[in-house]
Amino acid sequence: MKSPNSQTVQYLGVENMLRLVASCGVETMIKGMARYIEDDFRRWPLFDKVARVASHSADGVIELMPTSDGTLYGFKYVNGHPKNTNDGLQTVTAFGLLSDVATGYPQFLSEMTITTALRTAATSAVAAKHLARPDARVMAIIGLGAQSEFQALAFHAICGIDRLRVYDIDPEATAKFQDNMAGMDLTIMICGSAADAVLGADIITTVTADKQNATVLNDNMVGAGVHINAVGGDCPGKTELQAAILDRATVFVEFPRTDPD
Amino acid sequence: MKSPNSQTVQYLGVENMLRLVASCGVETMIKGMARYIEDDFRRWPLFDKVARVASHSADGVIELMPTSDGTLYGFKYVNGHPKNTNDGLQTVTAFGLLSDVATGYPQFLSEMTITTALRTAATSAVAAKHLARPDARVMAIIGLGAQSEFQALAFHAICGIDRLRVYDIDPEATAKFQDNMAGMDLTIMICGSAADAVLGADIITTVTADKQNATVLNDNMVGAGVHINAVGGDCPGKTELQAAILDRATVFVEFPRTDPD
Repeated sequence: MKSPNSQTVQYLGVENMLRLVASCGVETMIKGMARYIEDDFRRWPLFDKVARVASHSADGVIELMPTSDGTLYGFKYVNGHPKNTNDGLQTVTAFGLLSDVATGYPQFLSEMTITTALRTAATSAVAAKHLARPDARVMAIIGLGAQSEFQALAFHAICGIDRLRVYDIDPEATAKFQDNMAGMDLTIMICGSAADAVLGADIITTVTADKQNATVLNDNMVGAGVHINAVGGDCPGKTELQAAILDRATVFVEFPRTDPD
Repeated sequence: MKSPNSQTVQYLGVENMLRLVASCGVETMIKGMARYIEDDFRRWPLFDKVARVASHSADGVIELMPTSDGTLYGFKYVNGHPKNTNDGLQTVTAFGLLSDVATGYPQFLSEMTITTALRTAATSAVAAKHLARPDARVMAIIGLGAQSEFQALAFHAICGIDRLRVYDIDPEATAKFQDNMAGMDLTIMICGSAADAVLGADIITTVTADKQNATVLNDNMVGAGVHINAVGGDCPGKTELQAAILDRATVFVEFPRTDPD
């Protein structure tokens, strides 16, 4: 892409990103991202933040996520369409742009489908590293789509999780997860229900996308001291947790929404 | 740009857009755009609309402008940095993306620097066509940057304006405007002040970008029945009109801002 006055915009596509991930290794990429994420949380008040700008439709959502640190401006375009998988398409695709705040000129355009998958998992693990019990070793995962694999690797790399108790309503998703996690130094227990999966777990990760399953975790399934990483409940209508869980939990929010001026 | 699963995204760059404009002619492009703009205003309630998402900095602003008609989703990225011209860069650059609402997959990426220049002028002229006196022939233009030329051509093509009274604080901008408008079938009167320019004008176009000139038009400069096309006053701190003008004017708003839910 070329801007007026021959300013060029660098571009990183999916193929090259996959090549980069393959050469570094997923866990190394996630650990590197985690360091950047921690650094950014340390300078959190400095960012120009706004709630994601969502456009909802019957089958999904398209969102824009802009931010700036005063020197660089960036935004991400990301969609979420659970039914895409029926047609061989991905639930989530994304790209992002980085611009120079001083001139407003775009500098770098990147695929963010892969980056989003890694970054979501890295952020979950960074939160758990600071909020979950330090001796946590067992994690339940409910929902075994593509993101669950990155979650497993991130919690292994950053939090030392080595045992997984997993459940999905779809046996095919479960089988695919098990195949892809083979050889990853994780002991995996396939469970028959969400209630079964959470038994004895120090951390519970819910990572579902379908709007039809409104409640994945009930209050009576969650013991004291458990860290819940509810990844899929990111907008109205995608609610994984029964409200009573939030009532008795300590809730951590990265960006409390305020009314616009 | 290639999306996962080999879905390709079409791309239209600045060079090809300039070629397209050159082959069609600016006024023909603007008239074509004006038809689309009128059609979209006729189905206005159908659009998923949100106030532009702006990130302000000392020297300018970067904005995202998303919308959807339920079938296609689009957004524009656009910056506004008046000081860019000091460094040989443009005040405004832009690009846009069109996506399929059903899948969330991007389909078409386009430069929108040229498109924004044309579309802004087309929208101004469409508004004047419906709101200004039908016999309007004389337009004042205050601010003679790049956009003023498109405004002149759009009002000529769509509203029948054939006489311009123009003013800019910068004599170089004035000279450039005069050079570029030569042979465009417009009689141009160079004026020594904004107050001089508005004398006898049926339509007043203010098209300034610098945040320092907070008030371009005073109430006593504007007679009854005049149509004001205030292009530059598009965010807090960029106010071209004295408040008293708005108090006695009939004001037309395309998107009244409501509080988010």
